Amino acid sequence: MLRLSTRAPGFAEAFARVVDDRRESAVDVADDVAAILKDVRARGDAALAELTAKFDGHDLDQTGWRIAAETCKAAFDALDPTLRAALETAADRIRAYHEAQMPENRDYTDAAGVRLGAVWRAVDAAGLYVPGGRAAYPSSLLMNAIPAKVAGVERLVVVTPTPKGEVNPLVLAAAHLAGVDEVWRVGGAHAVGALAYGTGRIAPVDVVTGPGNAWVAEAKRQLYGVVGIDMVAGPSEILVIADKQNYPWRIAADLLSQAEHDPTSQSILITDDEDYADHVAEAVELELGELATQATARTSWNDNGVIIVVESFDEAPELANRLAAEHVEIATDDPEAIFAQIRHAGSVFLGRMTPEAVGDYVAGPNHVLPTGRRARFSSGLSVLDFMKRTSFIQLDEAALEAIGPAAVALAQAEGLPAHARSVSVRLNK
Amino acid sequence: MLRLSTRAPGFAEAFARVVDDRRESAVDVADDVAAILKDVRARGDAALAELTAKFDGHDLDQTGWRIAAETCKAAFDALDPTLRAALETAADRIRAYHEAQMPENRDYTDAAGVRLGAVWRAVDAAGLYVPGGRAAYPSSLLMNAIPAKVAGVERLVVVTPTPKGEVNPLVLAAAHLAGVDEVWRVGGAHAVGALAYGTGRIAPVDVVTGPGNAWVAEAKRQLYGVVGIDMVAGPSEILVIADKQNYPWRIAADLLSQAEHDPTSQSILITDDEDYADHVAEAVELELGELATQATARTSWNDNGVIIVVESFDEAPELANRLAAEHVEIATDDPEAIFAQIRHAGSVFLGRMTPEAVGDYVAGPNHVLPTGRRARFSSGLSVLDFMKRTSFIQLDEAALEAIGPAAVALAQAEGLPAHARSVSVRLNK
Repeated sequence: MLRLSTRAPGFAEAFARVVDDRRESAVDVADDVAAILKDVRARGDAALAELTAKFDGHDLDQTGWRIAAETCKAAFDALDPTLRAALETAADRIRAYHEAQMPENRDYTDAAGVRLGAVWRAVDAAGLYVPGGRAAYPSSLLMNAIPAKVAGVERLVVVTPTPKGEVNPLVLAAAHLAGVDEVWRVGGAHAVGALAYGTGRIAPVDVVTGPGNAWVAEAKRQLYGVVGIDMVAGPSEILVIADKQNYPWRIAADLLSQAEHDPTSQSILITDDEDYADHVAEAVELELGELATQATARTSWNDNGVIIVVESFDEAPELANRLAAEHVEIATDDPEAIFAQIRHAGSVFLGRMTPEAVGDYVAGPNHVLPTGRRARFSSGLSVLDFMKRTSFIQLDEAALEAIGPAAVALAQAEGLPAHARSVSVRLNK
Repeated sequence: MLRLSTRAPGFAEAFARVVDDRRESAVDVADDVAAILKDVRARGDAALAELTAKFDGHDLDQTGWRIAAETCKAAFDALDPTLRAALETAADRIRAYHEAQMPENRDYTDAAGVRLGAVWRAVDAAGLYVPGGRAAYPSSLLMNAIPAKVAGVERLVVVTPTPKGEVNPLVLAAAHLAGVDEVWRVGGAHAVGALAYGTGRIAPVDVVTGPGNAWVAEAKRQLYGVVGIDMVAGPSEILVIADKQNYPWRIAADLLSQAEHDPTSQSILITDDEDYADHVAEAVELELGELATQATARTSWNDNGVIIVVESFDEAPELANRLAAEHVEIATDDPEAIFAQIRHAGSVFLGRMTPEAVGDYVAGPNHVLPTGRRARFSSGLSVLDFMKRTSFIQLDEAALEAIGPAAVALAQAEGLPAHARSVSVRLNK
């Protein structure tokens, strides 16, 4: 853990190093992924079967290519009732938040008599990558699938690796609850290629979202433009801005909730009191000892954790904007005052009773958020990622007489005479 | 030009070939671009100066790195008054359309007592690539710059190559009118790298938009994630759905208005009358003879033009959805009936008096639109490309008691005990 103080000499340089630190994997899989995508595009299902045998160690013709809807329903029905109710609470609240996010169409006629507007429509089909193994979270499935369904996507396809043929019942239960239409037992870059290009068995989709390893992320990057994708995700981050009125163990738990995700995750505390910083640091050490995930959390905290002591919380918004973190907790007396000055953040958690983890599961807003300072220019996943907008224009003779001559003048100036002609042949003068 | 009829044998296969035809450059510049970006990142301005001398044939220290605001204003003031008025009409109408596009913030408290919402904010800085030479269109500058300024972007930076040091006065005039903050005399992949990484002279931006050649497009692809980018653009396309009540020369002019953009552009006519198809084809040939841009337009029409005769316009929406074209004109008696069934299109032009070219210049909606069937999943440029959304959550004790236990259950099921703990330490029970 790195301890900084804004009043210490060299703070600016040390903080700049924190900001510029790229904790992302530098492994270059571009060539491998390009070869896999080419293979899937050329050979379709045969390539999928071979690559699944190679990477996941099972034979799709033996285990089955798809997981049936009944299997997903059975997994849901078999859940412990408390867990099932929790999953339903999460789904209901995520659905409600995203329903309120639906964009409105526009259709109006302006003073020149020009009818203008835009219509939003869902994409026809979306693909959702769900990782296998440790990172297979039912909450992630809900956070990706529900916005797609709310947007109106008619065909929602999950691809997920099932190493040695083993499935994750929690993920299947979530797929049932979210109304996923197809679940395929394929993962890796080849599964993303199958979604984008289509194979004999898997019809192509228009948008691919969902988290994955370096191969999956690179496949999405390379297929950007063939399909739509969500923002490439890096390691998780939390910035906690907390005063000494917070119990230290609560803030320590918040810091550790990101640290336990991955060794490359980052937890940062900004506080205005050196003693309080000590107390939180001590609480982190104590709590680490009790965590089943302590190996991961300890590496993350030791390698990437930062505590910054400021002279005053007036300094916090500028630091937060430089960090542009995925999650920002503001646990102070007047969180609104700080929030109003924060321009760049994926999601903000206001007040002492809003631990970030409620946002991961049940609050309603999406937990797929921009990482690695990308909150400077990108947003969390939303219904808009599964929709697109068609603008429209309608002129009558009078409207064309009013604005057409300007189009003719500009087309001529740009050296595009056919553009000019297409307008002028419709004008009276 | 390819002539098809839906009733002819082999139509399905022939149409599928039109749909699948990628008219995009296959030239692989990925390695060259990666080397240029690495160089710009490492050496900054020195790399820019060398690459500008090499590709554009001028010495930035001689010509100046920036084009002054006064130079842009002088170019605007020197415009022919008709052209200046046309440019102002265009800017005013584009601004009005995009102002009405601004998203609304949300802030509400739900039945569980959870405060939820989202705040939209502009990115701090945006970079706009403006090509040099033939494709340097003032209308493109307006279509990129005005949405950025409407969104609230405080720093809007144009990069544009000035081969042999020569500037395009129309582009400078448009930069003045749109309120561009900085204009730099650099182009190519290195200019995009400078915008993304920053150099000694050029401060980095958060989003890069604007058209460019294969190097520029590849640079944007490679920098996606370092900055936000607009959708990669391919050759322009128009689909005209027209009945025989339209004067053939008007429809011919519409088809040619896309054909004159580039030899790889594509113009497609769908009509329900074989004789009318002949008349339009003849009109195209006649008009081609009069066009200053006929070399380009003729190649485009001969190589990529298509006329499809349908038995009934009932067949048109399905064909249009397969093509998912950038521009769709519907010049029929009841354009609304067809429009209602079109799910995939960049922009739609309704009725006989709405040539696509009015949308290129003065109607108001953006002319930066998805090409190459990307209207299946992406939208035209808008204020949203220059903004991002921060969600927020606020719970009090009662709200946390209400929804917190579900978060604890899910976190435990996912094997994330610190997540669970960050909630449970705040609960009374």
